[in-house]
Order: sequence, then C-alpha cells, then structure tokens
Amino acid sequence: MSLSASEVNILKHAPAVDGVLPVIHQRWSPRSFAARDVTPADLALVFEAARWAPSSNNEQPWHYIVGVRGSETHAKIAASLAGFNKNWAPNAPVLILGLAHSRFVRNGNPNTYALYDLGAATALLVVQATALGLATHQMGGFDRDAIRTSLGIPEEYALGSVIALGYLGEPDALGDAELIARELAPRTRKPLSEMVHSAWGEPARLG
Amino acid sequence: MSLSASEVNILKHAPAVDGVLPVIHQRWSPRSFAARDVTPADLALVFEAARWAPSSNNEQPWHYIVGVRGSETHAKIAASLAGFNKNWAPNAPVLILGLAHSRFVRNGNPNTYALYDLGAATALLVVQATALGLATHQMGGFDRDAIRTSLGIPEEYALGSVIALGYLGEPDALGDAELIARELAPRTRKPLSEMVHSAWGEPARLG
Repeated sequence: MSLSASEVNILKHAPAVDGVLPVIHQRWSPRSFAARDVTPADLALVFEAARWAPSSNNEQPWHYIVGVRGSETHAKIAASLAGFNKNWAPNAPVLILGLAHSRFVRNGNPNTYALYDLGAATALLVVQATALGLATHQMGGFDRDAIRTSLGIPEEYALGSVIALGYLGEPDALGDAELIARELAPRTRKPLSEMVHSAWGEPARLG
Repeated sequence: MSLSASEVNILKHAPAVDGVLPVIHQRWSPRSFAARDVTPADLALVFEAARWAPSSNNEQPWHYIVGVRGSETHAKIAASLAGFNKNWAPNAPVLILGLAHSRFVRNGNPNTYALYDLGAATALLVVQATALGLATHQMGGFDRDAIRTSLGIPEEYALGSVIALGYLGEPDALGDAELIARELAPRTRKPLSEMVHSAWGEPARLG
C-alpha cells in the first residue's frame, strides 16, 4: 500500500471531537518532508503566532534560531541530530532550534517558567504551521553540547527542541521500513480520565 | 469610560496579521471573570485539545487538577494564591492546577521535557478555550508548598501554572483602580527581530 502525502494526513488525524479546533486534531509529527521550500512569508507567520503566546511576567523568554536549507545554520543543526533523527530530519527544508532565556532580564533571577513558556510558544508555532498546510516534528534527540558550541549559544539560554518544518512528503520516500511503519501508525493518547482529576487520584467527571 | 466585556475583548486583540489564526490573536489573560459557569462539556473540550499536544516520546506528562466553584479543590487552589492573584482569581468559576510528571513512566529516568510539554499542552488548552468564547489567565504566583500539601501532590510531579478559566467579566467589576488599568492596558510583545535569529546574534530576515 503506497499512500500519497495527503492520504497520510487524513489517516493521521486524531479522532475528531465536535467543537475542538480542527488544527489541533490535524497536527501530527511526520518524518517525510517534500522538497518544496517554505516561503519567508509563511515562516514569518509561524513565528508571529509564537510571539503572542502568554509567558510568566510577559518575559517572552523564547528565542528561535532558524536554518533554511543550504544555510550554515541548517547544516549545523542537522549535524547535531542523534540516532534515527539523522536519517530523515536533515531533509526538512527548515530546521529551527528553540531556546529559552533562563533568567529574567530585569533582575537576573532564575526564570523557572522559561522552558514551560518556550513549550507554549512552540505549541502555537506548530498549530499555526498546521493552519498554513505545513508539517512540523519536534525532536529532543540531538547533541546538546555540539549544538551549543557550533551555534555559540550562551549557557544562560536553555535548549528546547529542534523543530523540523516543511511540507509533508510521501511515506515511501523515507526508504526505511521501520520509519515508514511509524509514519503510518495510528496516533495514540491516554484517555482524559488519566490526565484530568477533580482531586489527586480522582478522575474528573467531564460532560 | 466604562467598557463592557465584549468591548474589552476587542480592545485586547493583538494587532491582527493576515494569515495568523484569529484564536491566537484573540487570546489574552484577563482578571475579571463573569459569574456564569462553564459547562462540563466545554471543560471536556479544553482538555481534549490539551490531550493531543505533542510530547517527548509521546510521554504525555501533563496532569490537570480541576476545581469548579463550590468544590473543595477550587477552595484549596484559591487559598494557595499569592499577592494580587488573591484579589481576583478566586472569582473565576474554574481554577485548574497543571502538573508534569518529571520521570518517564517506563524507566523512571528524569524527563527534562516535562514542563516544556506541560506548557505546550496548556497552550492548546487556552487556545481551545478562546475558541469556545472562554477566557483564561495562567499564574505562577501561588504558594507551592501549600498547594502540594493541601492537594497531596507527590514530589515527582512538577508544578506548572494555576489557570483561571471562565467567561470574561466587566473591567469595573474588579473594583480596584490598578487592576482595572491593567485590564485595559494594551498587550505588548517584543518584535520578531528580537526573537528569531538566522544565527546567534543575527536577526533573521523574514518575508
């Protein structure tokens, strides 16, 4: 069974629940990216979405280093990838490293919400990407020391994820049976009863 | 100048940028909540959105303890609030505490993305709330030891934010000049050039 990119996108939709924003159900993390480039205008829009995320004391601790295919930054981020990620992620036309400033600018105190807020901003980034017909895949599997050195990131900036961004490609282009199987596997989540509680140890009764 | 809740909502929209999802621009963090209750069905939808967030190794480390007005959980969360938050947040019909399991279930190793992933899930929660006409305000200002004790949260669950959720109220209902002024103040963010870089120290040129 050989599926096209758009057939895979439909296969990977989360089970739709009436009233939930379609972009939230449609977002998933593929590994096959098409050759097509992302326009600078679309890139600006995904960061514009991240920009309006909420943050502790409106500190906006997030920073993104963006590498488009052919740039030195893209090559440096690709070179830092670990394991499996090396096999597919360098093909994404855009690789982004998310960073969080771990101190408040106004007083130098530690900002314990820095990574939390980076996660929030990046969630808006990937939802906005979905709305633009783009695919994203965040990775924690990369050599943290190597990327800090090659990109010259100061210690007070905590590393978030590397984000592969581009248009969805065909699963077969992955060329590896295990990666293709993962690309087609159903998406799974715990039931609400395991994540929403009315008190600790008591599942909430929701409508 | 006395503004209604819907007039304030329009005032607080971020400057719209064509192509950015309206719910991302419309979300903001008010302090005035109306008396109107949130239906259990709507509560289920906001958690359903959080449920489909991406997470490191699909660990889904997020947990939410939800207290609706009149419940013991609502009272315990309200009692833990610090400073300013005490003056307005207890009026929200729903108070939620976000938690992140800081160890991988399968092997007990530390999950360094736990809070990052909780931030992401909560970002989807608040965007979904916005889509349902609900307002949200996340707070880091609460007594962490007190809430851990009163709700019985084990140490391996890291505390995220307390989320006030409900329908927007009128600014004047806050009854305090400084809170009313904050409710009406323009929303601000750094420009894209300070958060998106093509290399460290080099603003990215976006379309």
